[in-house]
Amino acid sequence: MSDALLKTHFSETRLKYTGPELRPHFILSQFKIQGSAILAFRGACDVQTEELVDWEDRLVQDSIRATEMVHFLGEFFGPTLRETVWTQRLFIGILAEILREKFSVQTTRTGDDLWIGGRKLSVSIVTSSAVSQLLHIGINIDPSGAPVPAIGLAECGVDAEAFAREALSRFAREYTGVWDACTKVRPV
Amino acid sequence: MSDALLKTHFSETRLKYTGPELRPHFILSQFKIQGSAILAFRGACDVQTEELVDWEDRLVQDSIRATEMVHFLGEFFGPTLRETVWTQRLFIGILAEILREKFSVQTTRTGDDLWIGGRKLSVSIVTSSAVSQLLHIGINIDPSGAPVPAIGLAECGVDAEAFAREALSRFAREYTGVWDACTKVRPV
Amino acid sequence: MSDALLKTHFSETRLKYTGPELRPHFILSQFKIQGSAILAFRGACDVQTEELVDWEDRLVQDSIRATEMVHFLGEFFGPTLRETVWTQRLFIGILAEILREKFSVQTTRTGDDLWIGGRKLSVSIVTSSAVSQLLHIGINIDPSGAPVPAIGLAECGVDAEAFAREALSRFAREYTGVWDACTKVRPV
Amino acid sequence: MSDALLKTHFSETRLKYTGPELRPHFILSQFKIQGSAILAFRGACDVQTEELVDWEDRLVQDSIRATEMVHFLGEFFGPTLRETVWTQRLFIGILAEILREKFSVQTTRTGDDLWIGGRKLSVSIVTSSAVSQLLHIGINIDPSGAPVPAIGLAECGVDAEAFAREALSRFAREYTGVWDACTKVRPV
Amino acid sequence: MSDALLKTHFSETRLKYTGPELRPHFILSQFKIQGSAILAFRGACDVQTEELVDWEDRLVQDSIRATEMVHFLGEFFGPTLRETVWTQRLFIGILAEILREKFSVQTTRTGDDLWIGGRKLSVSIVTSSAVSQLLHIGINIDPSGAPVPAIGLAECGVDAEAFAREALSRFAREYTGVWDACTKVRPV
Amino acid sequence: MSDALLKTHFSETRLKYTGPELRPHFILSQFKIQGSAILAFRGACDVQTEELVDWEDRLVQDSIRATEMVHFLGEFFGPTLRETVWTQRLFIGILAEILREKFSVQTTRTGDDLWIGGRKLSVSIVTSSAVSQLLHIGINIDPSGAPVPAIGLAECGVDAEAFAREALSRFAREYTGVWDACTKVRPV
Repeated sequence: MSDALLKTHFSETRLKYTGPELRPHFILSQFKIQGSAILAFRGACDVQTEELVDWEDRLVQDSIRATEMVHFLGEFFGPTLRETVWTQRLFIGILAEILREKFSVQTTRTGDDLWIGGRKLSVSIVTSSAVSQLLHIGINIDPSGAPVPAIGLAECGVDAEAFAREALSRFAREYTGVWDACTKVRPV
Repeated sequence: MSDALLKTHFSETRLKYTGPELRPHFILSQFKIQGSAILAFRGACDVQTEELVDWEDRLVQDSIRATEMVHFLGEFFGPTLRETVWTQRLFIGILAEILREKFSVQTTRTGDDLWIGGRKLSVSIVTSSAVSQLLHIGINIDPSGAPVPAIGLAECGVDAEAFAREALSRFAREYTGVWDACTKVRPV
Repeated sequence: MSDALLKTHFSETRLKYTGPELRPHFILSQFKIQGSAILAFRGACDVQTEELVDWEDRLVQDSIRATEMVHFLGEFFGPTLRETVWTQRLFIGILAEILREKFSVQTTRTGDDLWIGGRKLSVSIVTSSAVSQLLHIGINIDPSGAPVPAIGLAECGVDAEAFAREALSRFAREYTGVWDACTKVRPV
Repeated sequence: MSDALLKTHFSETRLKYTGPELRPHFILSQFKIQGSAILAFRGACDVQTEELVDWEDRLVQDSIRATEMVHFLGEFFGPTLRETVWTQRLFIGILAEILREKFSVQTTRTGDDLWIGGRKLSVSIVTSSAVSQLLHIGINIDPSGAPVPAIGLAECGVDAEAFAREALSRFAREYTGVWDACTKVRPV
Repeated sequence: MSDALLKTHFSETRLKYTGPELRPHFILSQFKIQGSAILAFRGACDVQTEELVDWEDRLVQDSIRATEMVHFLGEFFGPTLRETVWTQRLFIGILAEILREKFSVQTTRTGDDLWIGGRKLSVSIVTSSAVSQLLHIGINIDPSGAPVPAIGLAECGVDAEAFAREALSRFAREYTGVWDACTKVRPV
Repeated sequence: MSDALLKTHFSETRLKYTGPELRPHFILSQFKIQGSAILAFRGACDVQTEELVDWEDRLVQDSIRATEMVHFLGEFFGPTLRETVWTQRLFIGILAEILREKFSVQTTRTGDDLWIGGRKLSVSIVTSSAVSQLLHIGINIDPSGAPVPAIGLAECGVDAEAFAREALSRFAREYTGVWDACTKVRPV
């Protein structure tokens, strides 16, 4: 039993992300971390069309692949899907801030995508289960195998673990900050 | 900035409860405690009819008075009014559990009231602001002045501060337990 | 068509509880009772690990078994999961109140569990479907077969049917009381 | 304490409607009816610009006046504003159904307005308080004094009380029907 | 990317409705229309008992059949099930208004059913998915094969396509009107 | 009547921001723009302590002042306060993106604040009314008069109107993108 608003964990163990990890209680059942949480880990990415949750992508028979990514897998109990999409967009923005401020890497954000020089750095999705909202963000380390022009952290000289740990830390602070902001304002 | 789900505080300073304390951000503005929280303190109670938030009581020109009570003042950001009424009822139940288990005092609960031998031990109300839900529970220490047959903790030999501190502790544990219970169940 | 807030029914027919009964519209499809409702019945309990909805229990390969229980199966249309967990906790508290007041049996409540002298009297869970919240509470009558030290109503001399009928009646009154409490308070 | 989903009441006593009646707990404090409810009564209507809750009307310095109307005043605990606007639109539709089926009066509905031959039969608004949603529908009996071309039930030969009682009855049935519809569908 | 609140589409292509079309993203995956939307099309109707989402009908082994219907299939992202049932009832009311005003056909509405002279003109259901609310309304064109006394638009001389296009247009206007009504009222 | 999800407007007319503009329907009543909207305008800023909605600031007797700011005033019908705080944080992030990408100005974001070289560029708050969520962001043009070390767009060579128009445009696109993201994902 713990009363933190959001837990974060960086797993040293590599894990291949294939899609079905985006399910309720994956973090609880695999990592014994209960409650709203973000898990980060490194590993390959290989999501076949039939595992995609995004209908836009399914309809064009898309798939997702990279030799190595740093993955952020989030589960949030309480918010709506739409609130969680705003959360995702800001998380993507935070990743861009870290890359610029800590690693001098300039990216461009469009919605939930990050780009470097026209090449794609990230994939991301948010969806709902009956008990929670689920988030996946994958940031290429080695993008080889990707079906589109892509770039990775390795080519940019970014240490993936340091990057991920900083992202977990900043996002957790932002998350608490957002909750705090709701508890100090006089209604009008 | 703190990320606990619920904060609790027992104030040694006595405070008279007159009704308007049941407002958003009273705990923040008076005690610098931000977020969902329960504050406990001792003090007189004198709520005039025009300060009552309960229409049933207002319509019969009721009022609330006692020479000394231990007050629990709660503010909850996020839940609905109805969820908070369930929370209140369970809090009242917890107070009864503590009286029985720690102080060997038998009470009877009906809704949000506690009774001992037909005499009233408590008053309580839950209401809404535009940004939060608000809870007041007053447990008589010295009920003199009450407009109905009443009894207090003093007559029962119960130390009000020890009682209040145990209540804050148990309720905070229950609160966290309820949040935890929402994050571990497979949907059906 | 009926406009009651909560229906209750005690079924004389025995039913074995195995887990899948905790699904939307079980009460409607089996008992023709429509809307938010609590059903009570007696019967064995045998829930295998793979039927458990509680991940904490699944992860330790737990299971639930008793020769005879009185079961309370609730379905609530409208509230959130978290509101329903508060409801569950109060229901458990009401069961303890009845045992003490009507049957002179002292129990201890911790969260959603009831204990007598360190032996477990109850099991309980709340979960969500896409259209409702679902509640199961099982109170041992004959706990034999239980995987943990347990006790039952029979050993305590409690008539299970009288106990269950009183519980349905008190809970329905509490439920209506909670709704009423939301319709009489001046906002602040 | 009552557990009906919606209460209805036709008040024989005439009441002038001036705007501030559209407030939380007017029905409870004036008629001792607690919970979601619709009250109907006859009386003049005189709502000055500064009492209007509709900004579209306030901005054009509108006002509402009629010598006699049958008023429906509703308060709903639980739904959102938007759900209540749907409820209002259907209520207006039910009024048109009754006029046609019981009184052979043909009306045209546009949004929350009823018209007969280009003349206005009704006024209506829905708004929010911090604890409930509030609805007013006024159907002209004698429209004299109205700032726009208007018509009333008297000219149409409609008995206002019979009309109002039928409206309360049909709306209550529809209300229960809508709640029932939410408790019998398999999610997809 | 489009920012309309509700999209509507009349499909010239005939489609047989068998039940499973009432699922999330059917309109997106089949018609490339994203967001809250209503689709209309003509086609046979043949929903077997096991495909029914209505437990009342399933329990009596009901089924739905007609040689030709005009179908309205809606998906709404954001509202609750109960709000969507109000929406459905009003949509049914709008269909009755169109039949009377444009086609001089008198119908009677009871809940979500339309009748002409004791014969059934329509079928309808609303249910939930984890990400949206779903609506089906079927209006008989040729009711032959129906398991109950039924009537269709053909016998009434109503052009099904003109009827459907008018319904989509009026409903979209109503939908926007309801949203607008929520954005102009002073709270009380 | 319009069915866009979010309206934006840049007002050429200067307006002094003093705090009470952060109220429901300011945009509707002053600019005839109905529905969820963002208004931008230039003007002085002078918010006295007693007009502050932020209790943290009120408690330290803070105030807000600048000779000229570009103000963004938003009103959102439908979301919760917490969702709107996420929205605010992302809007602040977008402002930083525009400053960097279009005007080569590097800023640092901490929560809802933007900084340049340790000097404050912005003020911002989100609060609730009973019918909507309200947002104010003020970006200094000329910060003179500010009670803390501050910097403005003028010193950075940024054209305030071009900046504001780009911000409205990008935010409206993001807003629609977030709504779209909720309507295309398979639940898990």
